[in-house]
Amino acid sequence: MNPQPESAKHARLLDGKALAQRIRDELAAQLAGPLAKHGRAPCLAVVRVGDDPASEVYVRNKHKACTEVGIESRRVELPASAAADALKAVVDALNADPVVDGILVQLPLPDHIAAAAVRSWVDPTKDVDALHPENAGLLAAGEPRFIPCTPAGCLELLRANGIETSGRRAVVIGRSLIVGRPMSILLSLPGIDATVTVCHSRTTDLAAVCGGADIIIAAAGKPELLRAAHVRPGAAVVDVGIHRVADASRKSGWRLVGDVHPEVAEVAGYLSPVPGGVGPMTIAMLLRNAVESFQRRIEG
Amino acid sequence: MNPQPESAKHARLLDGKALAQRIRDELAAQLAGPLAKHGRAPCLAVVRVGDDPASEVYVRNKHKACTEVGIESRRVELPASAAADALKAVVDALNADPVVDGILVQLPLPDHIAAAAVRSWVDPTKDVDALHPENAGLLAAGEPRFIPCTPAGCLELLRANGIETSGRRAVVIGRSLIVGRPMSILLSLPGIDATVTVCHSRTTDLAAVCGGADIIIAAAGKPELLRAAHVRPGAAVVDVGIHRVADASRKSGWRLVGDVHPEVAEVAGYLSPVPGGVGPMTIAMLLRNAVESFQRRIEG
Repeated sequence: MNPQPESAKHARLLDGKALAQRIRDELAAQLAGPLAKHGRAPCLAVVRVGDDPASEVYVRNKHKACTEVGIESRRVELPASAAADALKAVVDALNADPVVDGILVQLPLPDHIAAAAVRSWVDPTKDVDALHPENAGLLAAGEPRFIPCTPAGCLELLRANGIETSGRRAVVIGRSLIVGRPMSILLSLPGIDATVTVCHSRTTDLAAVCGGADIIIAAAGKPELLRAAHVRPGAAVVDVGIHRVADASRKSGWRLVGDVHPEVAEVAGYLSPVPGGVGPMTIAMLLRNAVESFQRRIEG
Repeated sequence: MNPQPESAKHARLLDGKALAQRIRDELAAQLAGPLAKHGRAPCLAVVRVGDDPASEVYVRNKHKACTEVGIESRRVELPASAAADALKAVVDALNADPVVDGILVQLPLPDHIAAAAVRSWVDPTKDVDALHPENAGLLAAGEPRFIPCTPAGCLELLRANGIETSGRRAVVIGRSLIVGRPMSILLSLPGIDATVTVCHSRTTDLAAVCGGADIIIAAAGKPELLRAAHVRPGAAVVDVGIHRVADASRKSGWRLVGDVHPEVAEVAGYLSPVPGGVGPMTIAMLLRNAVESFQRRIEG
């Protein structure tokens, strides 16, 4: 293990690893207790096309996490050459399978399969990633069926650490379908009530916009984009990014960095680490969505 | 006609009435020309439940606008006592009718009918109001099937007046399903690229947030909420509100006001009037959505 970097001495840690473990323990207890009487465990199906090595790691981690809490994890693997129709047939079969509670199609997909089409194939009531347009629309309407896992995880990190959102200024950097967009909507829903600004690659004055924020969610997908000069002293910063960058001082030749530069820890009041921040929370929220779907399905 | 208020002497007028007429003329020309060869006109069905007098005016205006441009307008009227099932049967029949291109259920609905349910009854491919969750989600994903009429109208007003959005700071006041939320998403989509902040009733520092904006969309539903002190000199202000307020100096006893106080005209660079700003644009965009739906349907 590497020592805590010196720059981390100011900001309080938004410890996603510990919080995710607590949530997983709670889910495991529910599944071993009140939810054990239904004759079957929740079942999450993960479909993967091709052999992208990063997505292999993600799928393996999800599988392990499922197993630990008592969710049955089903993996379907298709070759990179699989036709879109073959993937659709797999998804259709999982949609029709009464003991499958959650379905996710691991990204990225090969270039010949349009992710936009695949999103609408998954039965919205089993869409634990919440990427189906209907689920995105229900979130925008303030009536979410499922909340996308990474935004849900970021919000839980704030809540568990007592960080108020109502009436606070929040900035979300990034407008991706999976993180930035739903995160910005979620934070401004009634009951959460942050005043939210969405920044993106065309934003001209990132420092000025971020400088007014009580909460910053960095989800730009750019290594160490957010610098200390962007951050108001005491702000809560959640780092969604995770990137491998070359590092000759490491035996592996690389290290993981986020969208937030380490110097931000000297200014921010709270900061989520990479790794050990948002990543484990994303998986915990996926498990929670799968258990919720199971509950809805068995309890009618 | 009332004289232009003196306070309107600075801001340039975002003239929705004139722009809407231009768009309607274009649609009429299309329908009389290239789109005339299909043996039928586009058909928009408007369903109304009960006899709310304001919605009677809206429905009549929509009907008149349709007729003028060559869209067949079908009205279905249900009594205020109609059961939700009766409304659903009407919507189902319109969904199934091959010559109906657009369906809208006029709001407000009686209390015993849940608007959230009704939104998902309309066939998303005929949902010219773009309120179906699937259409809301497609917008959030940057792949809109239809753009909600009022946000689309506000954007057209900005564009037609040469107001740049890319990289500019925009503030949307209001987070409603019909205006604020889709407006904020639309303005921050790739290709439009504003840096957008959503304000709402829990926003604590409206003046500070608005003061940084190049573009303000006032859609809070509060008469004359936006004051001159909120607005940066030269900003473009679009007023979505429309309210009747008592006015003893008028023969009618009332006048129409927006969400923007008239004094804003002394500070803003551009301002849309009420009436004659966003209202006519909303109807023009509804007509455009109906014609687009018609084109998609007849051209397969």
